Amino acid sequence: MTLFFIGIGLDNEQDITVKGLNIVKNCKKVFLEAYTSKLNCDLKKLEELYGKKIIIANRDLVEKNPDQILDPTCDVAFLVIGDPLGATTHVDLMLRAKELNIQIKVIHNASIMNAIGSIGLELYKFGKTTSMPFFEPNFKAETPYLIIEQNNSIKAHTLVLLDIKMDQNRFMTVNQAIEQLLELEEKHQKGIFTEKTLCIGCARIGADDQIIKAGTAKELQEFDFGPELHSLIVPSQLHFMEEDALKIWSK
Amino acid sequence: MTLFFIGIGLDNEQDITVKGLNIVKNCKKVFLEAYTSKLNCDLKKLEELYGKKIIIANRDLVEKNPDQILDPTCDVAFLVIGDPLGATTHVDLMLRAKELNIQIKVIHNASIMNAIGSIGLELYKFGKTTSMPFFEPNFKAETPYLIIEQNNSIKAHTLVLLDIKMDQNRFMTVNQAIEQLLELEEKHQKGIFTEKTLCIGCARIGADDQIIKAGTAKELQEFDFGPELHSLIVPSQLHFMEEDALKIWSK
Repeated sequence: MTLFFIGIGLDNEQDITVKGLNIVKNCKKVFLEAYTSKLNCDLKKLEELYGKKIIIANRDLVEKNPDQILDPTCDVAFLVIGDPLGATTHVDLMLRAKELNIQIKVIHNASIMNAIGSIGLELYKFGKTTSMPFFEPNFKAETPYLIIEQNNSIKAHTLVLLDIKMDQNRFMTVNQAIEQLLELEEKHQKGIFTEKTLCIGCARIGADDQIIKAGTAKELQEFDFGPELHSLIVPSQLHFMEEDALKIWSK
Repeated sequence: MTLFFIGIGLDNEQDITVKGLNIVKNCKKVFLEAYTSKLNCDLKKLEELYGKKIIIANRDLVEKNPDQILDPTCDVAFLVIGDPLGATTHVDLMLRAKELNIQIKVIHNASIMNAIGSIGLELYKFGKTTSMPFFEPNFKAETPYLIIEQNNSIKAHTLVLLDIKMDQNRFMTVNQAIEQLLELEEKHQKGIFTEKTLCIGCARIGADDQIIKAGTAKELQEFDFGPELHSLIVPSQLHFMEEDALKIWSK
């Protein structure tokens, strides 16, 4: 009996791999982790392709009450948007399975962390990734600003992943992320992220209507990227081929 | 008419996505970029699943003579092991297509750069990626050592990709990579990579017989990881959950 961690990619039901699809079809239970990301298609589309009923796994189920998932009596598929182990969230579930002697197998897929290679910056030259949470009146997370500063110190680009509040159907836009970074700049005055900083905004990477737009922070702040999910890239020093690639998205 | 850049994942023919497979079946020409990586299955397996003849694209064809690929008269599939745009190698081909007004579309997939999430270190905390070339008598690349030093300075982990010489059927092992890093340490004496440095060696990530092994450089140097492809991870400061995850691979 095996717990399969299956990445289902970034766009729609068709992004699962052939290997992943064959496994899902043979699992007795199929869960979809649906609180850290979002596909561009309905649950029904997944169920049609898989020929299976899908159980939505929210954070409480996965983190506090995972017994349904950790079932030693049958093969279970745990579907994750993107790649299954992009964050430690699911490493915890993997460790629990190991403790219970449940066999685990990971079926990899694209995640935003490699798919942003399509903007033309070298993936090799990305430094640490950071997440930008929505500012609260009494808590304005400064980590993204600090990570950009750290990455700049070694000439590494920064991928900023933007907040997703699935339960409120609320997704941070590139525009909001830029606004928050400018607010942090206003406070710290280190010249890490100003209105003149070159950056790249992305929306719905991997989808047919994906948008990639390069420009200064000020320019991108006024640009409409359309529906979620958005991400922001703050490049460090550019190679000439990276500059050429970015020209495509500056028009 | 479109040029499709299609990632085919890391292990075997089954790792293509359903979307990718449907596209390949409808393309008139199908190329496989076969000089930067290697699958664990034969070309025949791909051809059987796709129902297509595959043309092997070596570096000369892609970089010096890409006219066959840049064909405005029909849909063309350009298959890349892993994700199609993990390195700027193929960004160049994308730019050439744009110049010729050939439409391009990217079908993403897993690459080693996100699949290493399965070792249990946070992908967020990886810094720049580096490649370790085979040392030549008159050229011993020092970049990997310098990148580890840079990443350490911001407490970021380092993924070291190991040299692949497809034309010679020669692939660097974890053991060789460690030997070369120790040689660089011997020269620079900065304490960046010693026999006591904790590291993680991986082989055939994504395959059924993948190996992940954590230990000191000295311990891993004596460990047999089996056939290619290998990679090495040099972690920086660990979070307690990362430490827990690594214990699985230390046994």
